Amino acid sequence: MQPANAVHLSPLTPVAFLERTAAIFPHRPAVVDGDRRMTWAELRERSRRLAVALQQEGIGHGDRVAVLCPNTAEILEAHFGVPWSGGVLVAVNTRLMADEIAYILGHSGATLLIVDPALAHLVEDCGIRTIIAGDGYEGLLASARDGDPEPRLVTEDDTISINYTSGTTGRPKGVMYTHRGAYLNALAEMHHARLDSSSVYLWTLPMFHCNGWCFPWAVTAAGATHVCLRQVDPGRIWRLFGEERVSHFNGAPTVLVMLATDPAARAVDPPIQVTTAAAPPSPTVIARMESLGFSINHVYGLTETYGPITICEWHPEWDAHDAPERARLRSRQGVAMLGADPIRVVDDEMRDVPRDGQTMGEVVMRGNNVMKGYFDDEEATRTAFRGGWFHSGDLGVMHPDGYIELRDRAKDIIISGGENVSTIEVEQVLLRHPDVLEVAVTAMPSEKWGERPIAFVTLCDGGAVGERELIAFARESLPGFKAPDAVRFGPLPKTSTGKVKKYELRERARTGATEGSDPPVAPDNATTTASGNGSPGTSRPDRPPT
Amino acid sequence: MQPANAVHLSPLTPVAFLERTAAIFPHRPAVVDGDRRMTWAELRERSRRLAVALQQEGIGHGDRVAVLCPNTAEILEAHFGVPWSGGVLVAVNTRLMADEIAYILGHSGATLLIVDPALAHLVEDCGIRTIIAGDGYEGLLASARDGDPEPRLVTEDDTISINYTSGTTGRPKGVMYTHRGAYLNALAEMHHARLDSSSVYLWTLPMFHCNGWCFPWAVTAAGATHVCLRQVDPGRIWRLFGEERVSHFNGAPTVLVMLATDPAARAVDPPIQVTTAAAPPSPTVIARMESLGFSINHVYGLTETYGPITICEWHPEWDAHDAPERARLRSRQGVAMLGADPIRVVDDEMRDVPRDGQTMGEVVMRGNNVMKGYFDDEEATRTAFRGGWFHSGDLGVMHPDGYIELRDRAKDIIISGGENVSTIEVEQVLLRHPDVLEVAVTAMPSEKWGERPIAFVTLCDGGAVGERELIAFARESLPGFKAPDAVRFGPLPKTSTGKVKKYELRERARTGATEGSDPPVAPDNATTTASGNGSPGTSRPDRPPT
Repeated sequence: MQPANAVHLSPLTPVAFLERTAAIFPHRPAVVDGDRRMTWAELRERSRRLAVALQQEGIGHGDRVAVLCPNTAEILEAHFGVPWSGGVLVAVNTRLMADEIAYILGHSGATLLIVDPALAHLVEDCGIRTIIAGDGYEGLLASARDGDPEPRLVTEDDTISINYTSGTTGRPKGVMYTHRGAYLNALAEMHHARLDSSSVYLWTLPMFHCNGWCFPWAVTAAGATHVCLRQVDPGRIWRLFGEERVSHFNGAPTVLVMLATDPAARAVDPPIQVTTAAAPPSPTVIARMESLGFSINHVYGLTETYGPITICEWHPEWDAHDAPERARLRSRQGVAMLGADPIRVVDDEMRDVPRDGQTMGEVVMRGNNVMKGYFDDEEATRTAFRGGWFHSGDLGVMHPDGYIELRDRAKDIIISGGENVSTIEVEQVLLRHPDVLEVAVTAMPSEKWGERPIAFVTLCDGGAVGERELIAFARESLPGFKAPDAVRFGPLPKTSTGKVKKYELRERARTGATEGSDPPVAPDNATTTASGNGSPGTSRPDRPPT
Repeated sequence: MQPANAVHLSPLTPVAFLERTAAIFPHRPAVVDGDRRMTWAELRERSRRLAVALQQEGIGHGDRVAVLCPNTAEILEAHFGVPWSGGVLVAVNTRLMADEIAYILGHSGATLLIVDPALAHLVEDCGIRTIIAGDGYEGLLASARDGDPEPRLVTEDDTISINYTSGTTGRPKGVMYTHRGAYLNALAEMHHARLDSSSVYLWTLPMFHCNGWCFPWAVTAAGATHVCLRQVDPGRIWRLFGEERVSHFNGAPTVLVMLATDPAARAVDPPIQVTTAAAPPSPTVIARMESLGFSINHVYGLTETYGPITICEWHPEWDAHDAPERARLRSRQGVAMLGADPIRVVDDEMRDVPRDGQTMGEVVMRGNNVMKGYFDDEEATRTAFRGGWFHSGDLGVMHPDGYIELRDRAKDIIISGGENVSTIEVEQVLLRHPDVLEVAVTAMPSEKWGERPIAFVTLCDGGAVGERELIAFARESLPGFKAPDAVRFGPLPKTSTGKVKKYELRERARTGATEGSDPPVAPDNATTTASGNGSPGTSRPDRPPT
């Protein structure tokens, strides 16, 4: 790409954001993490030490460094120190079980792991050199020699991170981000969220989700302040809003529901900018939050698109509509973010569906805000990019004004409290029970978590397992948030070719209907049980179930 | 740069900004140009027509298309239509004389020229196919077939524009910008100016200057509104501030002086964001503008750096300083803009000068915000980039806090009313007078224009030409703004190696001293004449002299 007489094209890398901000605002606040406070000079120095120490430990270009931490200063430092060393960051979901974490560590080939002390029990036998945040981590930083790390970046298309996602298959796939993609996406997020050097960003969104949608880099580019948060605790969040003068946060609609219904809820001034992803919160929650002074951006994306790739850009004239119409307009997933290629909704032959707001098609994307591919899985990459576009698996419509609206979530994904749950994975666990013949898992609406899994099960002849027993069985192999909340028994509705009509099951789950609408396969002897209590066995009431 | 398993990396091009904004906000106001108003759909359609028509006219990849227009809708359209066609935009300074324009048209090899009717007389005999804005241009647009132009972009490092600059040599050099550089610089400008879709940008800065510092693209990326302006007329600007609810404009300090001293000056609310380049306005002018509600960004750059490459980032705690200290802090050129590599100040051997705010060195830059090179001038490119960095020719210091401050303008450049004047060019003209033996031109301060040229002349034996006669002689070959305002006669101060001590002459011009400080070469028979009237023969009182 070097033009004939070019001299120096600097590769796009978000590490440059830290360098710039630390050079300009060395003494301004960069990080608040509980009682710890750090300036930009300090964050830069700790990130530099991490990068140098990693190189001293033998981390080479492209080597994977895993991190298993809640939203602490350490994982933020890793977002700079690891790529600065030439390594690749693998930020692992802290809500997974030990065997899932082991799979990710093994698949990514990570040779070093930084873990929060509270999570160390999950990785005791992982066989990888493990640094515990606290004394171990501080010792690592202290070991770093003076001076900058050796430059290791080869091109801006080098992989900066691998984010494991629960896709439609049982095993998570490793989504590769590049330095260039992270840089460009961070700039776009900064613009849409209106971050600047006076902003204060609260870390409600986990940094292990799509690298916190690239906000470790966006907030740093803006020279704003990071306020870390180990757990989504609404009371604590309301306190931090005031104490730290928070101006921005991101999160799943669940977080907004928690905040809107918390006893500490109160009006905020100046307004707080919220970016919320995927399914929009209910109009009631939006109205409540806006009346308190929150300004809400609705965005949509996937792990494969660096998090958000669309935004429901608001037109000032829409303010004149009544509340239901405003809610309808805002509930749409919208248009391509700045820097993203236009989003398409296509039929099976990659033809754009009509812009009628009715014809369903698959949402497909490409460009700088789409992943480089799945790590060590060329076949999955090829499949995902068939026809030259990334296939989201999400079904939606294109409205006459060019805004997309999702109509059906990717067939096999449930989003519970912001966490992806692969229905296939849950199905495979349930199928292990000796009484189970067939199973189909789908989403049912949950006021608290957005969605929760529900299982439709056909028992073997003579099978007698009940709902509670089967849920308990699932919990032996799955984290709580993936286990179903409810089980319904009976034959499954199927197409003429024998495929389960999941759409029909989702409808049943949504409406609470006990029967399918398709008489020939309707379960005339269906045994329907009530769903769970809506608070699915969580041990931490402030978070999605773990 | 394609990674092994990449699928589609979209090239960075600012044309994408128009596509995105037109798709999202088709019916919102894009352009106000006198009585003409255009939506984004209309601007996109006219730019598309221009691109298609240019292709129909035979413009191929990399072919140059020149534009000679004040800030009208046509030159704005050209910033999208020309690159969209695959062509390279050459926006020519409208203040040049016919032979200078002819040189640029010839050197760039432009094969098509779009010219404003008011400037058509300057290019009558240029020998290039010329389209006159108005009927001719509208006819060209009308000739375009339906559908998008053929895609012609090869890589994001393709040249998007060539901007001719008066450097230190007599002939202008063609500075090449790339699609990638324009894209990244536009994003950075948008961030620093805080442009968003509610912004209204007034075109006081000529689009032929560094492509209006990339604001045709930045304002479009933000979805803000362009308000065109043919001439810098302070009364009209004050009217437009109110009528169009202007929120942003850019310009040389001269423009601020005009506005601050205009009888129509009044307080504005909400604040108007001004970005002003190069030498900061005087503290008095800043204080006056800020008291009226203007917020001022001070930036610095060159044509070779896409316009601004540094910004004097303001620290909130500086608000507590007294006015002189605030003015001192703000008068510094500052730090690298977002996306720019760190700026260096170096000695002759490319070593960084100490950060002491005292040691002078040359300001050097590199990275994505630095030009690709000079068009068709590899030697000048090599010279400019010696040591791997672009040499600005500007002398400055590095303060302890990493902010740069210019101490001496590039030796041979005078900036008069925002226009570059090459002293060498003026010297060469004066040397043609038979009575002149030696000449050195430098800057003298001008309250109105910032700087104006002054000539120090040694006459031949028997030479008798006087000041007025010599100025008139210069005006025969130079536009008014380049001709000196004053001439002083006498021997020139020289170094031991015989080079003229220009620094000393600048000091004399600055202080009005009639003698050098260096006794051995002091002109003991110097004939000093008063400088001009400060309004150097301009025919348009609202602009720098032409």
